[in-house]
Amino acid sequence: MADNVFGSELFRDQLRTVQVPGGVETVMYGGERNPAPIVEAFGDVAQVAIIGYKSQGPAHAQNLRESLAAAGSDTRVVVGLREGSETRAIAESDGFTVENGTLMTPEQAMKGAGVVTMLIEDSAMVQQGVRYMREMDRGTLLMLAHGIYQGHVDTNPEADFLDGLRVGMVAPKGLGPSVRRLYQQGSGINASFAVERGDDKTRDLVLAYSQGIGSPYTFQTTLGSEWRSDIFGERAILLGGVHGIVEALYSWKREHGRGSEEAYMEVVESLVGPISEAISHRGLEGLFESIEGDEDRQKFIEAYNAAYPTMKDLTLKVYEDVSSGREIAEVVNDNISGRPFTTVDGSSMWRAGERVRESMDEDTRSERVAIDPTVAGVYAAGMMAQVDVLRLKGHHWSEIVNESIIEAVDSLNPYMRKRGVAFMVDNCSITARRGGRKWAPQFQAVISQGALPVIDGQRAQGDDYFTAFLNHDVHQAFRVFAQMRPNVDISL
Amino acid sequence: MADNVFGSELFRDQLRTVQVPGGVETVMYGGERNPAPIVEAFGDVAQVAIIGYKSQGPAHAQNLRESLAAAGSDTRVVVGLREGSETRAIAESDGFTVENGTLMTPEQAMKGAGVVTMLIEDSAMVQQGVRYMREMDRGTLLMLAHGIYQGHVDTNPEADFLDGLRVGMVAPKGLGPSVRRLYQQGSGINASFAVERGDDKTRDLVLAYSQGIGSPYTFQTTLGSEWRSDIFGERAILLGGVHGIVEALYSWKREHGRGSEEAYMEVVESLVGPISEAISHRGLEGLFESIEGDEDRQKFIEAYNAAYPTMKDLTLKVYEDVSSGREIAEVVNDNISGRPFTTVDGSSMWRAGERVRESMDEDTRSERVAIDPTVAGVYAAGMMAQVDVLRLKGHHWSEIVNESIIEAVDSLNPYMRKRGVAFMVDNCSITARRGGRKWAPQFQAVISQGALPVIDGQRAQGDDYFTAFLNHDVHQAFRVFAQMRPNVDISL
Repeated sequence: MADNVFGSELFRDQLRTVQVPGGVETVMYGGERNPAPIVEAFGDVAQVAIIGYKSQGPAHAQNLRESLAAAGSDTRVVVGLREGSETRAIAESDGFTVENGTLMTPEQAMKGAGVVTMLIEDSAMVQQGVRYMREMDRGTLLMLAHGIYQGHVDTNPEADFLDGLRVGMVAPKGLGPSVRRLYQQGSGINASFAVERGDDKTRDLVLAYSQGIGSPYTFQTTLGSEWRSDIFGERAILLGGVHGIVEALYSWKREHGRGSEEAYMEVVESLVGPISEAISHRGLEGLFESIEGDEDRQKFIEAYNAAYPTMKDLTLKVYEDVSSGREIAEVVNDNISGRPFTTVDGSSMWRAGERVRESMDEDTRSERVAIDPTVAGVYAAGMMAQVDVLRLKGHHWSEIVNESIIEAVDSLNPYMRKRGVAFMVDNCSITARRGGRKWAPQFQAVISQGALPVIDGQRAQGDDYFTAFLNHDVHQAFRVFAQMRPNVDISL
Repeated sequence: MADNVFGSELFRDQLRTVQVPGGVETVMYGGERNPAPIVEAFGDVAQVAIIGYKSQGPAHAQNLRESLAAAGSDTRVVVGLREGSETRAIAESDGFTVENGTLMTPEQAMKGAGVVTMLIEDSAMVQQGVRYMREMDRGTLLMLAHGIYQGHVDTNPEADFLDGLRVGMVAPKGLGPSVRRLYQQGSGINASFAVERGDDKTRDLVLAYSQGIGSPYTFQTTLGSEWRSDIFGERAILLGGVHGIVEALYSWKREHGRGSEEAYMEVVESLVGPISEAISHRGLEGLFESIEGDEDRQKFIEAYNAAYPTMKDLTLKVYEDVSSGREIAEVVNDNISGRPFTTVDGSSMWRAGERVRESMDEDTRSERVAIDPTVAGVYAAGMMAQVDVLRLKGHHWSEIVNESIIEAVDSLNPYMRKRGVAFMVDNCSITARRGGRKWAPQFQAVISQGALPVIDGQRAQGDDYFTAFLNHDVHQAFRVFAQMRPNVDISL
């Protein structure tokens, strides 16, 4: 694994190069947003055009507008939306209006904009990207919020970024609403950044952009590495994996005689509550250490050993289907053919969840639920399977820890806790919503068909994977990167 | 829809051109295998080489050897296998030996063979096909047992059939062991045939081949139409769909208080027993008519209306993922990377099924189980969804009825009845085994999340699809083609 190091004179006070297993990585670790470098980096940028106002749009536009104003910069933030776009009303209510000259068509917004951020839907970007790039001035910094367009370019070279454009990315590790909320709370959110085309000055502008939208905590990646880990991660443990895990374990608890609401508490509430909190605060090893009593620890170990191999096989398959470009092609086809989104929260488990949330507030639920060692063991196996696959495929530790652990427990699971799985999945991108729907049932199946029979003693216990868990490099990496994130828990 | 008509002087006594909704189709309807045309068609073929001895190999080789001998033909049937192939022992035990000169390497077998049937695994054919074709004499008839290689050629033109070869296909509508067993029972099995490259003489040879391997009941298709309907069908109702349906309905019965074995009887035994029998003998309309009492008929109608739309959406997605070539590319990648096959019969339902089969023989089970109207309604919806998708995509009625209905109830479900889902799925091709594993959980999910909440009255009942069911063209088409199939039920 190559080191992952970068420098910046402008932001040197906020860069840290840290020791990770097998090397070193540089991270912008945040702290106070400091005005001076932001003003300097945006110096010759008269206008930033935010194109699209769905998930990430409101966060980028409003946060950047407020950061630049606070820093005393006279760079203008405008929003570009098609005439008749249904998000125009939202932009106007956020103060981007035709009257004050900050709401216009994409083509108008791009004129004279030194920075253009493309936040339209993935399939729209695939269909319109090249046409929009032709509207941009030479030297413009084309910003993206994730790397998936590069995934499209990999299989469609004619869609490549036009010569003369600079290309960068800041990908916040959370949903648009979280990016906005955590900015308003003054904490910020983790992100990754990439400078695909550009010089040191471009990198400083990208870092300033990251600070401006409320991601003063950012690590370096590439578009290619980001889209793979992102599209993969949401299909695996972040959305599809965790959904499949709870569906399988709920049916298993019911088979073992639990009532529906009891099973919901022991599976879903345990996972999104104390299990996620333990991981967030102390990592995966901390999760195990927080389990008390030999008997419960043994249950965790047996669940981990039973679930890991089959979760690892499926997770590796997810990565390869994504990395090959087949997954993106499938999503694009589903979008173009207008494939409807299926219900994801109709099963009896989610109906039990509705009853639980009606009868108890979050504090009461927290009081009544403990870490279920079997649920913890299966979830830890799924999370570690993702860590191992990303490591196998050569991703850096900063990306692995953020995309596999921190985003799950800090940013996504709180949504499931608040209002169930659909509230989590359907607050994500269309690409994520389709991927979560496709893969959750397959994770459910390998656990129900493969892991639970072993846990029930119906099939022979396999190899020992838990020793590798205890000695895993990820624990050190987590300790490093856990310090470099907002210390405010997300509140929905 | 164009008519689907063909002629043959040689087999004119066994051809029937029948009225189907919207046109006419010609079918070779079988009856007694009659020697004369077979001898004449194979006239100048000194040797038939069967390459590969896995699923279909033993059936093609043994049946053809016996048919040619019985007809008094001196055409020789030989088997070609790599040195060290693990199937050599099986071929030898079937009387294809090195000593009697009927077992050799593929290259040796192809020399001087007028007909070469490629029955090696799909991924091996993808990797080795062109190399093998170079070994064949000009004018050789290259026979296939399904059209999937054409699917590979569609996206890899360099893999196309070499000039100078004739290309044909006979695709039996059942597993290799069924093809052999039904031949021995003297009945035979349905098949489709295609003449991709060749003249009338080639077509007669293909028809004679079909009779020789025990498929005197055959309808015309193309490689392109066959591989799409075949790869699609096994992912949908034939394997993946039916597996997903029973998993979802079992959990639902358990949620409604049934014991595990009781739920297994009401779901799996009902589907593979009386429901499949009713469809086999009287079609989908006959299934509904065989349900007695307004209350149960209402349950069927509600289940059908709740399940049809979500099954239709997913089934259409399966077709498009298959037709695009993505599905084959995924299978090839999984095979090359040696992806392990996950367990498919580990869930508590299949463990209950083992107990049921241990405690009761098939006759006792048949006595104790009736048609469950909800199970019947959901299954009928899944089957009709497949019929409608194939019709939408322009397939002929003979193919639709055989690939969606007859193969399911006559050929595949009996395997699930005998020893559970793995016995059915894992007796199929590797492509089918991977597809069944991938799609079953997704069918389970749309039923659990989408259909059952409606059936339970938790979500509003949607549109009326049942009226279209009652008036559907498929019922007439089934009546036509149901007469043109073996009249002996498969016995395992």
